[in-house]
Amino acid sequence: MARARVYITLKEGISDPQGKTVLRALKSLGYDEVADLRVGKYMELELDGEDKGKLESRLGEMSEKLLANPIIEDYRMEVEV
Amino acid sequence: MARARVYITLKEGISDPQGKTVLRALKSLGYDEVADLRVGKYMELELDGEDKGKLESRLGEMSEKLLANPIIEDYRMEVEV
Repeated sequence: MARARVYITLKEGISDPQGKTVLRALKSLGYDEVADLRVGKYMELELDGEDKGKLESRLGEMSEKLLANPIIEDYRMEVEV
Repeated sequence: MARARVYITLKEGISDPQGKTVLRALKSLGYDEVADLRVGKYMELELDGEDKGKLESRLGEMSEKLLANPIIEDYRMEVEV
């Protein structure tokens, strides 16, 4: 059993209204040190298999096809076998 | 300027319908090696300041108050000054 993590973020230049809203809320609470904030997604997976290279390749496919939207999002992943 | 990352996940035992839906979709696409999947949130912040300890303490406050819901979510963070 392997564990994997996928981090999905909006590409640079894509506007992030959710992040802007959270940023404004933090500033209104007095957290003026926050200069910028962007919101992404994070997924933790359990995968059957021991072949790290194969798991990474399959997880890359899953990310491209379903987990992320490659038009507007970047993703990176970590696989621990 | 410091960079920080906050990872927010549902606590163990809290059901994750979004994760279950994504898991089912992956299996329907033939990714049968995925045994479990949980969805969380991921935030990237830019913070003014150089004092790592102070930034971590403030970011912990922000996470407790606004970024995460500590009743049902856990969070962890990384601060790079």
